[in-house]
Amino acid sequence: MAGGRLGNLKIIKILQQQEFLSRAKRLKLVLSDNDGVLTDTGVYYNDRGEVMKRFSIRDGMGVERLRNIGVQTAIITGENSGSVKTRAEKLKLPYLYLGVKDKLAKLDVILKETGYAIDELAYIGDDTNDRRIIEAISPSGLTACPGDAMPVIQEMVHYKCKAVGGYGAFREFAELIISLRQQ
Amino acid sequence: MAGGRLGNLKIIKILQQQEFLSRAKRLKLVLSDNDGVLTDTGVYYNDRGEVMKRFSIRDGMGVERLRNIGVQTAIITGENSGSVKTRAEKLKLPYLYLGVKDKLAKLDVILKETGYAIDELAYIGDDTNDRRIIEAISPSGLTACPGDAMPVIQEMVHYKCKAVGGYGAFREFAELIISLRQQ
Amino acid sequence: MAGGRLGNLKIIKILQQQEFLSRAKRLKLVLSDNDGVLTDTGVYYNDRGEVMKRFSIRDGMGVERLRNIGVQTAIITGENSGSVKTRAEKLKLPYLYLGVKDKLAKLDVILKETGYAIDELAYIGDDTNDRRIIEAISPSGLTACPGDAMPVIQEMVHYKCKAVGGYGAFREFAELIISLRQQ
Amino acid sequence: MAGGRLGNLKIIKILQQQEFLSRAKRLKLVLSDNDGVLTDTGVYYNDRGEVMKRFSIRDGMGVERLRNIGVQTAIITGENSGSVKTRAEKLKLPYLYLGVKDKLAKLDVILKETGYAIDELAYIGDDTNDRRIIEAISPSGLTACPGDAMPVIQEMVHYKCKAVGGYGAFREFAELIISLRQQ
Repeated sequence: MAGGRLGNLKIIKILQQQEFLSRAKRLKLVLSDNDGVLTDTGVYYNDRGEVMKRFSIRDGMGVERLRNIGVQTAIITGENSGSVKTRAEKLKLPYLYLGVKDKLAKLDVILKETGYAIDELAYIGDDTNDRRIIEAISPSGLTACPGDAMPVIQEMVHYKCKAVGGYGAFREFAELIISLRQQ
Repeated sequence: MAGGRLGNLKIIKILQQQEFLSRAKRLKLVLSDNDGVLTDTGVYYNDRGEVMKRFSIRDGMGVERLRNIGVQTAIITGENSGSVKTRAEKLKLPYLYLGVKDKLAKLDVILKETGYAIDELAYIGDDTNDRRIIEAISPSGLTACPGDAMPVIQEMVHYKCKAVGGYGAFREFAELIISLRQQ
Repeated sequence: MAGGRLGNLKIIKILQQQEFLSRAKRLKLVLSDNDGVLTDTGVYYNDRGEVMKRFSIRDGMGVERLRNIGVQTAIITGENSGSVKTRAEKLKLPYLYLGVKDKLAKLDVILKETGYAIDELAYIGDDTNDRRIIEAISPSGLTACPGDAMPVIQEMVHYKCKAVGGYGAFREFAELIISLRQQ
Repeated sequence: MAGGRLGNLKIIKILQQQEFLSRAKRLKLVLSDNDGVLTDTGVYYNDRGEVMKRFSIRDGMGVERLRNIGVQTAIITGENSGSVKTRAEKLKLPYLYLGVKDKLAKLDVILKETGYAIDELAYIGDDTNDRRIIEAISPSGLTACPGDAMPVIQEMVHYKCKAVGGYGAFREFAELIISLRQQ
């Protein structure tokens, strides 16, 4: 694995490059938080309530490109927005977990439902409610956050994207995984 | 109280750190302006008028996290947008003051209605119509503004957020309060 | 007039500070382009066509504050969007010129309709179709552009805002005028 | 041709300035990707699916200004959004290619339908699905990308815009073409 690619990444402080590469190669599922990762945290309201959220086509292409090399994507979110449901359908995500107040508690359900082992998972999240699931996945899987994640999250993940939420953070993580699996 | 946390803040020019900490500890209610604080000042119009505003999920989590440690949040705004009403309902805010042309004049009503003393209040605002209420609350409560507030407001508050309106300014102020109350 | 206020402005290359101040003092009407000035050039489309545009509450307060000191605001735009019409109504603008393909040709109509002289006008615009009207107003009135205006426009106006279109450019120009008239 | 205008452009590494100028002068059609070029990659969803996309009025003026000097614009996109269709109608584009999964394969159809030769084409795109058509057009036509295009695209085009997608990238490329054809 070329040193240059990961040379300036925070991950080398935490994981050996070889270990990071091994984890990328066995990866089966990227679990992604929604708000602040696939969006820029924005939510639009009118006088009848929540109306829409903004997603990125470029992240959608990341989902597709991961699928092409055998890695699925799923969304897990504490919110219960209809917009996430329709976006997940458009992206043909095999799994979607809405309204999850305790993401760590949900992890067992996810492992059982998907049939994947915890060391075949990656997780990308940005806020304090992602903290405990990131702690659970980090020892054996891969974890990441957008460049504008809450400071506490930035300090605990393997990889901090340069791109911010809603503007390519997911895609950047996807492309890193793709490039590593090609090595 | 660790010096590092507040070391680079404007507040230390105005308030002693110990005083800032005391005020954070007795805080009961964060009063927040809406446009330019919970939004990036944006308002969307179609051919029938105002249709929506954009809020941040991350600020919403700040409201929830403040509530969990016993601090309520209320919105006070000069506008009368339906979007603010539905957003406030979603966030389960106990108080909402819409269409307030003179915010300072409303302060007495707020103190009576909520039962809080003025030294149990914090205020975050960004524009000239927040000026007089900030002047009224600053001597005994806490005041803040987004990083992109109008210059005149930036010069008068205790704490200027790094984050801008609509992109985490409220959350940053909330997390500062939370971290101080844990000391 | 304090030198500091205008010390770093492009205008001092073109106008003497005293002349700029005189023009600000006799000002009666700020003519503003819409797209790229009151918006960030964005226009939202769905499958039925144009649906909305985003404006800034902070600019709206600039309109109100100018009115309070006797300066009116009008919008002149080449587009014919319903959103501009409803926004102008909300801001209680006395004049609105929609679908104006040749803004310079419209200037005579505006002068006649409003009763103002050309040296009582200011103009703020951002794109090539504002060029000729800026050339017409610059010799006796005041002209400005957002910080992200097209380069050709940036080079020809008296004042280039630091703020960009849709994010406070109009307000910045308004506050400059207000502060000058108070001197 | 003045050296200053292209002095700091990547294109001079790839094409001689004289060759770039020749290609600009014979240009008949600018083919533009949509998402990430005419938009900032954003797509808005509600509970019924995709609802809208954001375009730039300034790019629209680029289309008009190119048409005024005899250069047409067409959109080619892998997506099938109604918003692109209505935006293309508003801009009076003579050609629109929606839902194109393989853009390179479509190139023959485009050349036949429009009657233009491949050396009369320019292409601006931002993502991996633009890669092969950029490779096909680069040897005889002109190619460009927004300033925030995917890294792999930035490395292969003749001209990388300073402006990003949805915020004037298309317009910047259009103005470069216009200024070169005036020489």
